[in-house]
Amino acid sequence: MKHFISMQQLSKETMNQILKEAELIRKSPRTMNKQLFAANLFFEPSTRTKMSFEVAQKKIGLEMLDFHTEASSLVKGESLYDTAKTFEAIGANVLVVRHPSDKWIAEIEKEGYLSIPVINAGSGKEEHPTQCMLDLLTMYQEFGHVEGRKVVIAGDIKHSRVARSNALALEKLGAEVYLSAAPGFEDTSLHYPYIRMDEAVEIADVVMLLRIQHERHIHKAETSDYLTLYGLTMERAAKMQKHAIIMHPAPINRGVEIDSRLVESKQSRIFKQMENGVYVRMAILIHVLKEWGIINENEINERKTLNII
Amino acid sequence: MKHFISMQQLSKETMNQILKEAELIRKSPRTMNKQLFAANLFFEPSTRTKMSFEVAQKKIGLEMLDFHTEASSLVKGESLYDTAKTFEAIGANVLVVRHPSDKWIAEIEKEGYLSIPVINAGSGKEEHPTQCMLDLLTMYQEFGHVEGRKVVIAGDIKHSRVARSNALALEKLGAEVYLSAAPGFEDTSLHYPYIRMDEAVEIADVVMLLRIQHERHIHKAETSDYLTLYGLTMERAAKMQKHAIIMHPAPINRGVEIDSRLVESKQSRIFKQMENGVYVRMAILIHVLKEWGIINENEINERKTLNII
Amino acid sequence: MKHFISMQQLSKETMNQILKEAELIRKSPRTMNKQLFAANLFFEPSTRTKMSFEVAQKKIGLEMLDFHTEASSLVKGESLYDTAKTFEAIGANVLVVRHPSDKWIAEIEKEGYLSIPVINAGSGKEEHPTQCMLDLLTMYQEFGHVEGRKVVIAGDIKHSRVARSNALALEKLGAEVYLSAAPGFEDTSLHYPYIRMDEAVEIADVVMLLRIQHERHIHKAETSDYLTLYGLTMERAAKMQKHAIIMHPAPINRGVEIDSRLVESKQSRIFKQMENGVYVRMAILIHVLKEWGIINENEINERKTLNII
Repeated sequence: MKHFISMQQLSKETMNQILKEAELIRKSPRTMNKQLFAANLFFEPSTRTKMSFEVAQKKIGLEMLDFHTEASSLVKGESLYDTAKTFEAIGANVLVVRHPSDKWIAEIEKEGYLSIPVINAGSGKEEHPTQCMLDLLTMYQEFGHVEGRKVVIAGDIKHSRVARSNALALEKLGAEVYLSAAPGFEDTSLHYPYIRMDEAVEIADVVMLLRIQHERHIHKAETSDYLTLYGLTMERAAKMQKHAIIMHPAPINRGVEIDSRLVESKQSRIFKQMENGVYVRMAILIHVLKEWGIINENEINERKTLNII
Repeated sequence: MKHFISMQQLSKETMNQILKEAELIRKSPRTMNKQLFAANLFFEPSTRTKMSFEVAQKKIGLEMLDFHTEASSLVKGESLYDTAKTFEAIGANVLVVRHPSDKWIAEIEKEGYLSIPVINAGSGKEEHPTQCMLDLLTMYQEFGHVEGRKVVIAGDIKHSRVARSNALALEKLGAEVYLSAAPGFEDTSLHYPYIRMDEAVEIADVVMLLRIQHERHIHKAETSDYLTLYGLTMERAAKMQKHAIIMHPAPINRGVEIDSRLVESKQSRIFKQMENGVYVRMAILIHVLKEWGIINENEINERKTLNII
Repeated sequence: MKHFISMQQLSKETMNQILKEAELIRKSPRTMNKQLFAANLFFEPSTRTKMSFEVAQKKIGLEMLDFHTEASSLVKGESLYDTAKTFEAIGANVLVVRHPSDKWIAEIEKEGYLSIPVINAGSGKEEHPTQCMLDLLTMYQEFGHVEGRKVVIAGDIKHSRVARSNALALEKLGAEVYLSAAPGFEDTSLHYPYIRMDEAVEIADVVMLLRIQHERHIHKAETSDYLTLYGLTMERAAKMQKHAIIMHPAPINRGVEIDSRLVESKQSRIFKQMENGVYVRMAILIHVLKEWGIINENEINERKTLNII
């Protein structure tokens, strides 16, 4: 057989030979060199989160399946359910999903829906839990714990899944959560006190800025005013406590929510957050794979000995 | 040299040093750890086939080159011929091609055209042979063989390369092939008997449904009628023989060609087909690489011992 | 924890457990199996260069991060600076950048800008140094050196970064550089003699053709005339010296800048150039990683022993 092009060219013998080989492959034991596959299903643009997951997956020795929504059967109208089941069928051991909606979550949590874990890499307006975990890690590294720490989340609270995930988690861990938002950016469903930026910088241990999605919400003429009125200017930053830190999930609008010079300033942990994203996602991947019995403690130790983890 | 940015900055010495190193690399023997590269050239959207090939390639230890048509030189008008030759030149050992046309096939089969095998991952309206092979594997697992089995291929016969590949192969292997299609979906070039769905479900060992490309062919108002008139409803499925199975190449239009509840029913082999796709594609990849002498029996056994295959 | 979906579901204990694990991961020594990551940031379409870099990276054992500009945060307006810093933060050890502009280069060369090397995979209208290096390697293989060799660069000089990089490097290495261009395609900033194609083929050791970007510059009606007036026809090729060779960076416009039959003729080195691209890029990657102390001579030797390089 020169190429594998058409059934018409294929002899009965070749067909049977290949089919027999396929069955042997299916039945063969694969005890060593256990390959595990992570499938990344990103239905929204992402640099940091997606690339961070890829690094994390490669660092713990997972094979990565990169699903390009624009070149996929989704253009033929397939549902997320069927896409997820497909990846399960072809051998994915864990799914990482970013999706503009939150609706899929209730579905996948039904009993028997999936036999593999799903990690939420950002969904709808509600949750971005891996971002939250890396933010927490950054604060832990700084303060040891977050209990009693004053964290001000500032910016477009209304449209931010980061705000919501962080506020919930920080409260649970004993931090004092404050919000700061320009008029129209408040979220009335969150019951934390709102304060102005001028007050925020003075009390905060952490000033956690959010991205202003100015392409959507602000007229070009207004973006220059935004920094002065509601953003972290040089003047405001100068009033922060000595030990206080600046955080931002990025991508950053330099000159809108933050003065460009502050991005890599001494108090900024913005690029530290990105680095922490890799460690946190490694830990989360290992955690869920262990929980589901897909990888066991021995295998993890073996990988650690080999310096794969 | 701080970065590698411009020829202007590069000293003559550095140029020569790098060129000498490049020649050493070219000439160095690489006897162990033989790396093999598979290039996936998908000129049409695909989830299942593409991802299935990726898993298959990784499972047999091939490096994968993922060619994104939308971000490639094709936007500059390069021909498939030159693209294929390019991948051959940079070191691909096998090409997997999905293309909207069938014309390229005659070309690549010319003597001396290419020194590496090509696997057809779906071409034009004619052939989808790897899909056919996984369908055959699914039937073999069920019945041991397909001889004398009644297989009804139902749906948009006219626009389906799956229908054509399967009908040809099944006939060659001794199955009885029937077709079932709504008015306008028949393909008069295929000489198999057409029967209605009500009859199909009663006689079939295999009801092989096809995707209705309703985005192209049916008005929205008509899709709800389609199921009742020509699709696999619960009522029709109830009339199937006990041992008979339901197949579908997916993506599925739930509620159009099949009642949504049947997709994961006891008689359905739809997700089994996807799983089989990985084994069949592993077998096909190994088969062609062996045929072309790119990998030999010893190397395959060695990889098997290492549990790489 | 069934899936990792929301901070709301996560207990304080699970949070702390994962955070502790993440810290352990961060601090763990990774002496063996040192993983290195290359990030490919292509902001313009490319087949050859991108795929060639991927093969080179895999051949020297680098992990590859594939950045899809169309699905990235760039749609949110992030700057190249912040994107580069992001990849540095998540663990990239070398960046390969193709960009429509040359402006980013001055930026990244500022002291302290980046702690990892950048390789220019084609920028603006100015430079395409890795293409130049593979062209040089091809000439070295042919002639041993380029000193005194007559190289005619012919085609759309004005819009070609390949022309500029090659002319500069060839002059530096002692070759005699000539240019040949249709009216309107000359670049007056380059001080090399312009000659007509009829003269070029007679004196050249190397006829280096450039791609005519006819989608941009020429009306369809004029492309057929282009070959006859300014391109490499069969007649002109017949007048070349016996030892002279034809080169082209590709993608090729068959029948525009070159007669299609010459592409794979005995004098053509076009596909040889592509093959050389892999070796040159391997050498460049190793070179910069060594220069920055990211990989040392011992590690390179170790990888060579293991046949990884």
